[in-house]
Amino acid sequence: MNNKSKINGAESLVQTLVHNDVNVCFANPGTSEMHFVAALDKVPGIRCVLGLFEGVLTGAADGYYRMKGNPASTLLHLGPGLANGLANIHNAKKANSGMVNIIGQHTLQHLQLESPLTSDIEAIARPMSDWVKTSKNSMDLSKDGAEAIENANIAPGKIASLILPADTAWGDGGPIITAKAKATRSKVDEITIKKIANVLTNGVKSTLLLGGGALTEEATLLAGKIAAKTGCGIITEAANARLSRGAGRLNMLRIPGAGVVDRALSMLEKAGQLILVAAKPPVAFFGYPDKPSLLYKEDAPISKLVEVEEDIVSALTDLAIELGAINAVPNHVAVSKRPDRPSGNISKKKLAMAIGATLPENAIVVDESVTTGRDFFPATAGSPPHDWLNNRGGSIGYGMPVSIGAAIACPERKVILLEGDGSGMYTVQSLWTMARENLDITILIFANRTYEILRGELTNVGVQNPGPRAVDMLTLDRPYIDWVNVAKGMGVESLQVNDCDNLLKALDVGIKKDGPFLIEIIF
Amino acid sequence: MNNKSKINGAESLVQTLVHNDVNVCFANPGTSEMHFVAALDKVPGIRCVLGLFEGVLTGAADGYYRMKGNPASTLLHLGPGLANGLANIHNAKKANSGMVNIIGQHTLQHLQLESPLTSDIEAIARPMSDWVKTSKNSMDLSKDGAEAIENANIAPGKIASLILPADTAWGDGGPIITAKAKATRSKVDEITIKKIANVLTNGVKSTLLLGGGALTEEATLLAGKIAAKTGCGIITEAANARLSRGAGRLNMLRIPGAGVVDRALSMLEKAGQLILVAAKPPVAFFGYPDKPSLLYKEDAPISKLVEVEEDIVSALTDLAIELGAINAVPNHVAVSKRPDRPSGNISKKKLAMAIGATLPENAIVVDESVTTGRDFFPATAGSPPHDWLNNRGGSIGYGMPVSIGAAIACPERKVILLEGDGSGMYTVQSLWTMARENLDITILIFANRTYEILRGELTNVGVQNPGPRAVDMLTLDRPYIDWVNVAKGMGVESLQVNDCDNLLKALDVGIKKDGPFLIEIIF
Repeated sequence: MNNKSKINGAESLVQTLVHNDVNVCFANPGTSEMHFVAALDKVPGIRCVLGLFEGVLTGAADGYYRMKGNPASTLLHLGPGLANGLANIHNAKKANSGMVNIIGQHTLQHLQLESPLTSDIEAIARPMSDWVKTSKNSMDLSKDGAEAIENANIAPGKIASLILPADTAWGDGGPIITAKAKATRSKVDEITIKKIANVLTNGVKSTLLLGGGALTEEATLLAGKIAAKTGCGIITEAANARLSRGAGRLNMLRIPGAGVVDRALSMLEKAGQLILVAAKPPVAFFGYPDKPSLLYKEDAPISKLVEVEEDIVSALTDLAIELGAINAVPNHVAVSKRPDRPSGNISKKKLAMAIGATLPENAIVVDESVTTGRDFFPATAGSPPHDWLNNRGGSIGYGMPVSIGAAIACPERKVILLEGDGSGMYTVQSLWTMARENLDITILIFANRTYEILRGELTNVGVQNPGPRAVDMLTLDRPYIDWVNVAKGMGVESLQVNDCDNLLKALDVGIKKDGPFLIEIIF
Repeated sequence: MNNKSKINGAESLVQTLVHNDVNVCFANPGTSEMHFVAALDKVPGIRCVLGLFEGVLTGAADGYYRMKGNPASTLLHLGPGLANGLANIHNAKKANSGMVNIIGQHTLQHLQLESPLTSDIEAIARPMSDWVKTSKNSMDLSKDGAEAIENANIAPGKIASLILPADTAWGDGGPIITAKAKATRSKVDEITIKKIANVLTNGVKSTLLLGGGALTEEATLLAGKIAAKTGCGIITEAANARLSRGAGRLNMLRIPGAGVVDRALSMLEKAGQLILVAAKPPVAFFGYPDKPSLLYKEDAPISKLVEVEEDIVSALTDLAIELGAINAVPNHVAVSKRPDRPSGNISKKKLAMAIGATLPENAIVVDESVTTGRDFFPATAGSPPHDWLNNRGGSIGYGMPVSIGAAIACPERKVILLEGDGSGMYTVQSLWTMARENLDITILIFANRTYEILRGELTNVGVQNPGPRAVDMLTLDRPYIDWVNVAKGMGVESLQVNDCDNLLKALDVGIKKDGPFLIEIIF
């Protein structure tokens, strides 16, 4: 190495990130990450986004991957900083999002002592990561970084956690490394294609269950052609990382999710034989007394077309060709039709209408509406084309951070965040980052002032007549959260509404605005 | 078992908690914990406190133990709920606080399926816990609960994490179990006492380094007697879980902590031979290039009187007797003297004076003031007697939650929370719980609008001339956080001040008020 190229380990790592298209770093640094922070400054081509709590960062990386298909990096301060980000790493892992976590660590020598922040970072990372490594040498940091990126890029997307001891950051760095290209997705074999074609034409009611990468516009329209030819139904998993929908795209129902097992069982009973397209055999969100955990009968006919990590579009194309459906006009396509603009008091149904009536074209809808949102899907099916993002990991507090990542991935698109008041509080610090980066997000807070889903769940698990102290644990009153003040406090413009006219006005303002805008909806 | 006593597993667990003096549950439940929530209602004698984020709960349990000496329980929702609480469990573990975490889990059958919230909870719990167990049978739940309490009670206090599958909660419960009594702390042997007495009288400058349980009024006054007799110095570890101080109590300096290694080295060089009293050999917070990790020379004379889990008061008593110091008038006792009430612009020094001038008698001071608070200790040494709590784990976001737990443990005492604006944001949801429970906490937010410690750390780790993007990652501007609005939004009365007169007025209001009051201090 000549002197001109002498860089430290942190610089070699940041250069390797940029060289391999990891262009964003969601960061909350501490002392052990100071050289990495300095390197972020010296190396052009990486956008640094500060978050005031680590769950904001890891959720943002999830949202970024969903919309960009490329991993972002996070910068986390030692074991506790990683711990704060774990819940949204969990959600990202369940959503098959790729992510490169850079986690600072003490110097290798300091680590042998018992100092306040010492912890076993590898052990903390492992339960939520697909790949974990501690760099042992500054010269290897770029190589380890490239390996992390290669792992994050494994289809459909993996969690890579690279632990960065401070002395590997400030020691001499090695050369920039080019990560191996993403592997080509493997193709489904002809035998499987023919087998599924036979299932679809055996005279029994069939339904395609679409998951993961089968939810792009291209993949769903192929499924629509198959439906046109065979008469099969098409549904999606209960929660989808990213679903293309709206007018001109496929109109599909989701399997009902948390808290409504009976509705899910009823839908799947009507579905007939299930064909899995990048989806898993459906299971309930929770186990309940006297209710099954599987949402299908153990002897039900379930076949699999393609796994989430395989070449999904090519499997659907081959199946459509096999069935003679490739030139069919797709079935189940939504016609362009918005609901009427509602008036009067706000109900869940009118809320759904208001969203359907105003949803801007090409919006990214991040849905953490929990109980409030059960009517939203049908009401928006004929709205202009948009993407719909759900939480696949079930850990609440995903919505605000994922919106940040989506907005940064797609600065030209409007993000509409549908957020419960309970779930919104988990990562409420997100609002500050939205303000700082002036992200184009309209935030709807559904202020029902309760963990409403749990009221239903008390009954579902067989608790009779819960007493006042139990109900207290589900209720967000005394005091009510005043979201308008909370948002203002973090620099986000905000309004409270409690009737449909003001809701629609506020939606018009928020959607027109180029930046974050929060609407607290009392109903 | 007769029918009359037929209870479910959750009820048997709650009854076992109450029976063994675990009288508080800091809770954020989900579906899998609904039977436990119902049981909290049915069983009298347990106070349930709802938090809107799990880091609030685990930090509150830490604060509760520090002030009460008895573990509280937490109720956490599955792996991600535990993950959200881990950083403050880390801090509690480093502070030697006992805690009984009850973590909900899927039914054992459901756990075999891949559902959204499935994760390896034992693996998530282990890095931050001393004891981890998953209950396998509803009849064993009370037994497992008693075992968790026994483990939490092991001196000086341990983290016990009990995982509660939903079906063990709703299945038939076993009998209430009495946990084994806390083991008697072992006594330091006579040889060690004589050895330390010899060290203290060998003519070389000596200093007692007090940690953990050596910081009660009783223990520190014994140390003061030993100092009166031998002329030794007395210092404390850099961060203390709970330190009794103020007028009439011992006035001790702490070893300087994060960001100021040189000051720590200088203090310890002057200390001479160190005698550890429930303390560890001192090490730096972080490793730095060209600075040692150990705060003492490797060949320095260090002796140990007593370990943190042993009988500390009896060791100090025996040593005082051995030295003929038991009837001495303690040295280093602080005289009663408050600083003058400052006026004009606010500086760090005047801030310290204002706190010293107004600190109410018997206050509990929770200190997460980071860089702002480096002058606070001397300015409050002669204020009325109080307890001072520091973060021993270094993971910021401990202050607000620990204040909640301290206020619940000691409802008759005023809690004064000294909080940085950066650190306060990590667990800002705490404010809502303070409002809901009307906790008697005066919150001072030091709004320097930066992670100021990191500016120093950039230099300490050898980064020269950081560029604007690096500085951006340390700066809480664009937008400024408006703490008055944030607090109001969560139901806490609040004021902003930017000069000493208004600061003192606000302190008077907050201290007089019986409930939470937040003062945002701009300086």
